[in-house]
Amino acid sequence: MTAAKTPNPPYYAVIFSAQRTDGDDEGYGQTAARMEALAKTMPGYLGFESARNEDGFGIAVSYWASEEAIKNWKQKAEHLEAQRRGVENWYSDYNTRVAKVERAYSMKQKKTD
Amino acid sequence: MTAAKTPNPPYYAVIFSAQRTDGDDEGYGQTAARMEALAKTMPGYLGFESARNEDGFGIAVSYWASEEAIKNWKQKAEHLEAQRRGVENWYSDYNTRVAKVERAYSMKQKKTD
Repeated sequence: MTAAKTPNPPYYAVIFSAQRTDGDDEGYGQTAARMEALAKTMPGYLGFESARNEDGFGIAVSYWASEEAIKNWKQKAEHLEAQRRGVENWYSDYNTRVAKVERAYSMKQKKTD
Repeated sequence: MTAAKTPNPPYYAVIFSAQRTDGDDEGYGQTAARMEALAKTMPGYLGFESARNEDGFGIAVSYWASEEAIKNWKQKAEHLEAQRRGVENWYSDYNTRVAKVERAYSMKQKKTD
């Protein structure tokens, strides 16, 4: 995982934070990888970042060009099925927040000569 | 780390994603813990979530009541010093995004009887 390269604001972020339950790491991992690949094919997709602590608490942020793009992705059939499995099997607690990115700053260290 | 309990939208999120450099885990950990404790004392603080992968890529999201609250926190002297040390010593790459949370959903599994 590396930082997402996003355009200048404004654009949208979907912030998903969740506590993984124990078990079914294989099923979860396969579906997470498939959803990341599928999201990249959606109109308005701008980028994705994720991180997870050893205790299973994780944050995933996807970036989108518009609210319509987020709605299309939320309603995509294969994604709906993954969401259903997430609620039933993989997460004990989750939060989804849709936010409009208004300002952004970034820095990448340059190597000194 | 558990999920932040935030009020109904609208409110603001600061999404910070960064790649940690190797080393100085003690200095970094002490400062990160201190900044989390200090943020909680600031006006308009609503919550904080963070996660980090084993390879050092991490995401931290803080939630705030207003843009003014974010500005106050960004300019807090002890936080400015921590930001300076972060750029110089702890991160090879980072992104900060300020976003207005417009919608939010959450779920917590109930135990079945």
